[in-house]
Amino acid sequence: MKSYRKELWFNTDERMAFINITPEIEKCIRESGVSEGLVLVNAMHITASVFINDDESGLHNDYKIWLEKLAPHAPINQYRHNDTGEDNADAHMKRQVMGREVVVAITKGTLDFGPWEQIFYGEFDGRRNKRVLVKIIGD
Amino acid sequence: MKSYRKELWFNTDERMAFINITPEIEKCIRESGVSEGLVLVNAMHITASVFINDDESGLHNDYKIWLEKLAPHAPINQYRHNDTGEDNADAHMKRQVMGREVVVAITKGTLDFGPWEQIFYGEFDGRRNKRVLVKIIGD
Amino acid sequence: MKSYRKELWFNTDERMAFINITPEIEKCIRESGVSEGLVLVNAMHITASVFINDDESGLHNDYKIWLEKLAPHAPINQYRHNDTGEDNADAHMKRQVMGREVVVAITKGTLDFGPWEQIFYGEFDGRRNKRVLVKIIGD
Repeated sequence: MKSYRKELWFNTDERMAFINITPEIEKCIRESGVSEGLVLVNAMHITASVFINDDESGLHNDYKIWLEKLAPHAPINQYRHNDTGEDNADAHMKRQVMGREVVVAITKGTLDFGPWEQIFYGEFDGRRNKRVLVKIIGD
Repeated sequence: MKSYRKELWFNTDERMAFINITPEIEKCIRESGVSEGLVLVNAMHITASVFINDDESGLHNDYKIWLEKLAPHAPINQYRHNDTGEDNADAHMKRQVMGREVVVAITKGTLDFGPWEQIFYGEFDGRRNKRVLVKIIGD
Repeated sequence: MKSYRKELWFNTDERMAFINITPEIEKCIRESGVSEGLVLVNAMHITASVFINDDESGLHNDYKIWLEKLAPHAPINQYRHNDTGEDNADAHMKRQVMGREVVVAITKGTLDFGPWEQIFYGEFDGRRNKRVLVKIIGD
């Protein structure tokens, strides 16, 4: 069994942002030499997400509005987590809705994807350096 | 390490539907010959879900009402994604709540499940052909 | 390829509770002898969750209030699942928001984690014996 590990770094200009990381994951798979296996891609921070959906700007705008409705940022004093000096309690909730990680099949050395699947880094408390872990196992 | 891959196809009569696919996944595991490993089951489309919960019709009815409340289909012009000519922005959100994929342990050649766990295909924009991917790795 | 399996048991005093199980998972990894691989940790019951987030009591309080708002327990007759004699329909929804499982990378024989990641058992219908499955594969 082969294994491979890489960290990807991000620093977004906005508090909330979605970045298509599919090309980076494809590159990791090529570097790994794995032909048949699984790739785990996960946020290493607990106010961020890795998820799979459509690379369409209207949808991303809809996600931002929808997540803000489900878990509003303000007023920040509505959350006890923010009593610790943080202002990001809402980001911990948005990340649970969108998910921490994806596991994707590797078949014939490439991402085994449907027609519109793309992997995104989802940031909910940005403007600082944060990481994504890529771990690949297989043959 | 052994690996196995299969696509399952669905075409639901309703826009939103839940289909128990546990027997098909058990069949895949038998075909794979894997005794100890992991099975990944994921929707290949971004307005559908694979999730694990109870096979109880009252609960499925509750899920439909709840998801419609969290991410309403109408009015469709509330979503910028629908400006592209689609009417399924809500389905992209419902799928994030329910999740894209499940990873299940295979032990002694079978799904390693608790008493009520069943695997479902969750459709949120049906009435057309859509796929689920089953990928198995192990020994 | 090595594989390892263990069940962890829980019985919470409250209906809703979050328990940090990271030390137990680290112990499983040591017992497995796996140096490079993946660990799957999943609730075996469909009204419970395994998720990764922060071990901060204010945040956990916020999660409880937020989940109760997204999927209220009472009145129990608002859910058709509860017509079966259950009163836990809301717990099946809360579990979907928080997720059934996590998959974590194992690197150099330990959990490959960011600075604040901790694994929690999330209980939404407690006060009885329930299980978590730990399955490890790798070399």
